[in-house]
Amino acid sequence: MSCVFCEQSSRSSEKVILSNDVCRVILVADKYYPGYIQIISNSHVKELTDLSSDNALIVFNTILHMEKTIRKIFNPDKVNIASLGNVVPHLHWHIIPRYFNDRHFPNPVWGEILNPEYLPDSHLHRCMTTLIGI
Amino acid sequence: MSCVFCEQSSRSSEKVILSNDVCRVILVADKYYPGYIQIISNSHVKELTDLSSDNALIVFNTILHMEKTIRKIFNPDKVNIASLGNVVPHLHWHIIPRYFNDRHFPNPVWGEILNPEYLPDSHLHRCMTTLIGI
Repeated sequence: MSCVFCEQSSRSSEKVILSNDVCRVILVADKYYPGYIQIISNSHVKELTDLSSDNALIVFNTILHMEKTIRKIFNPDKVNIASLGNVVPHLHWHIIPRYFNDRHFPNPVWGEILNPEYLPDSHLHRCMTTLIGI
Repeated sequence: MSCVFCEQSSRSSEKVILSNDVCRVILVADKYYPGYIQIISNSHVKELTDLSSDNALIVFNTILHMEKTIRKIFNPDKVNIASLGNVVPHLHWHIIPRYFNDRHFPNPVWGEILNPEYLPDSHLHRCMTTLIGI
């Protein structure tokens, strides 16, 4: 079965900001959530525990590094981290900087929209430049 | 400010199935999702990167251990893992066994209900006995 995280054609359009032997960090184009990134396993596995312990640790250290980076650059009110993969069962982690006034807060970004008028401040778009340059 | 994960009165009603110096694993009473657990930091911190590296690693190893345990006992179609904390900003991780036919699949459990008729098979309730006994 084809997988959007494996196919070369879709991979070539990814905006990768960091990568190592086990995973890569890509920007998610979401106009409501600047700074939204995904950490994607390079190998096609479904769950974290399908990786070797060493490789799972590399993913974990990448999550820690990216949470730290996102907090430093975006100063969010909260960071949301999730590995779901119900639609694309290829291990990937969502990391999303959240703000008290954002489009879904306090819901997860997959929940009901509570603030439909919300658009991120231009300051957050400027932060994106810093994130892309890491 | 009071915190549901810190208050002794709410802690005393937690169904703890495993604990260590850094975090505890509790059962979440959700009739649609038997096997839904939370890993809660013992110290009141907001984000994973508020913990020391050593303690973050203990949380991570607990996540790995619990994902492995949940997969073994419940054999889910997918495992969902998330640290949100928008409502209760005290570090805690949700681990949720998911099935293709469950109440929200493929949505996250915080998303729209897609299968309102769903009730878990009695087999999954029996798995709970195994989980409680770990």
